[in-house]
Amino acid sequence: MNSTTLYGGIEAGGTKFVCAVGTSPDDLREERFPTTTPDETLARAIAFFRAQPRVAAIGIGSFGPVDLHPDSPTYGCITTTPKPGWRNTDVAGAIHRALDVPVKFETDVNAAALGEARWGAARGLDTFIYLTIGTGIGGGGLVSGKLMHGLVHPEMGHIRLPHDFARDPFPGVCPFHGDCLEGLASGPALEKRWGARAETFPPDHPAWDLQAHYLALALVNYTCTLSPQRIILGGGVMEQTHLFPHIRRKVLELLNGYVQSPPLLENIDAYIVPPALGKRAGILGALALVM
Amino acid sequence: MNSTTLYGGIEAGGTKFVCAVGTSPDDLREERFPTTTPDETLARAIAFFRAQPRVAAIGIGSFGPVDLHPDSPTYGCITTTPKPGWRNTDVAGAIHRALDVPVKFETDVNAAALGEARWGAARGLDTFIYLTIGTGIGGGGLVSGKLMHGLVHPEMGHIRLPHDFARDPFPGVCPFHGDCLEGLASGPALEKRWGARAETFPPDHPAWDLQAHYLALALVNYTCTLSPQRIILGGGVMEQTHLFPHIRRKVLELLNGYVQSPPLLENIDAYIVPPALGKRAGILGALALVM
Repeated sequence: MNSTTLYGGIEAGGTKFVCAVGTSPDDLREERFPTTTPDETLARAIAFFRAQPRVAAIGIGSFGPVDLHPDSPTYGCITTTPKPGWRNTDVAGAIHRALDVPVKFETDVNAAALGEARWGAARGLDTFIYLTIGTGIGGGGLVSGKLMHGLVHPEMGHIRLPHDFARDPFPGVCPFHGDCLEGLASGPALEKRWGARAETFPPDHPAWDLQAHYLALALVNYTCTLSPQRIILGGGVMEQTHLFPHIRRKVLELLNGYVQSPPLLENIDAYIVPPALGKRAGILGALALVM
Repeated sequence: MNSTTLYGGIEAGGTKFVCAVGTSPDDLREERFPTTTPDETLARAIAFFRAQPRVAAIGIGSFGPVDLHPDSPTYGCITTTPKPGWRNTDVAGAIHRALDVPVKFETDVNAAALGEARWGAARGLDTFIYLTIGTGIGGGGLVSGKLMHGLVHPEMGHIRLPHDFARDPFPGVCPFHGDCLEGLASGPALEKRWGARAETFPPDHPAWDLQAHYLALALVNYTCTLSPQRIILGGGVMEQTHLFPHIRRKVLELLNGYVQSPPLLENIDAYIVPPALGKRAGILGALALVM
């Protein structure tokens, strides 16, 4: 590819879409707009790309669940989402047909992970995970250098954890599982448990110790299951950066020396980290999908 | 390789070693002996191979924790095991130096997973896990066609789960974590909780419903984290084959329709399965490591 080749990216989120054209974090033109109906939202994305110089390909990181199997008849579709109107929406197909460019389709979290692998906090790693903790909780990543797929794709937010009923009788908000991780520790769980939006709480509010506790339990489970070389925590809830030292300390306490690895035991500050690309991990990762 | 090339395998277990020479499940000469001191046990393995026709290479699937990084000075060693005398034992180096053949070193569960991938219940799959539930609980597998490594290697037995204190006040037996999965559901946990060896319990003993419950919670967590195409359950505890239908039913109940995938929803009997190679998965997998 010569230096003038441009690439496109779409971060298809449940509340907002981000479209961009460019080549890197230092060369990116982007537009954001709210996610409304599929027809209106996809038309707006298509109009954005039509107004830009032609791109070689477009990568899409989408909210889900999604169909990632290239040989499936519903490849590129959002499948069983509860989001009104979006069930069975062929996102990749609509973009491909309208713009006549190659399209690659991924989960939003896998795209963000790829962005961090190319330009951010996961450079040089082949096995790591990226988690977003916000309206929902999701996770993706690379294992041995490949984006995680498998049967469908990971749904890391829905693991079950010890629920600390003694100090937390709150039943959880997940409509499928009640007190799974997302049910206990997503933004809506925080808001419903404490009766106010969590970003208004001071750092010494008891919400945060409980939040760090549940997230640390989850990270211990991912570490034992996948043995990631690093864990990146993004999403709105993690903008409370005071959570990081709490989570790191609790992860070490919970592992209790069992996983004998210097990067974990001696350098936990570099093991559990925020995304180096910040809120741009997703859109840059969408671009990276096709570069 | 022509049809007369022979391969060697060692299943290095904490209680027994299995050594074998051959080419497939239908062509395998093996010997088993108890794991005593490292010197004595490795000498016995070396003597076995010296008495056999020369092999092209030897694969080793070992109990752990182990060092799997080929560029590490302690590659091929058992590292921080609590097993007396075995800490920092250079298993791969000892075999390589004595027999002057290429050696490949893996976790016991990754080796067993590879055996199942080549000849057993995971043929044709690129992402699946193999769990052993016995004296300890461990897991390995392939993700996108590659054996799981990462920072160290998975330690799937040490994930944390909701502990059902109401019907199970037993605190767990894991010396590191108390009531992690291994602490609650390994063979020693069953024996200590109920005061007798579990293989003596009839299928309607309450031990089994609780056991199926904890294992189902663990399988849900692995499914959400990795999205495996299949889960293979081996090890001594799973010789209680009546556990399989319980576990399958509880996994579906716990997922509650969230993961919309026909292999899971419509064919759970083929999703959670015993190893097709039975107790030979480990030794055959050791062979497969170098074939």
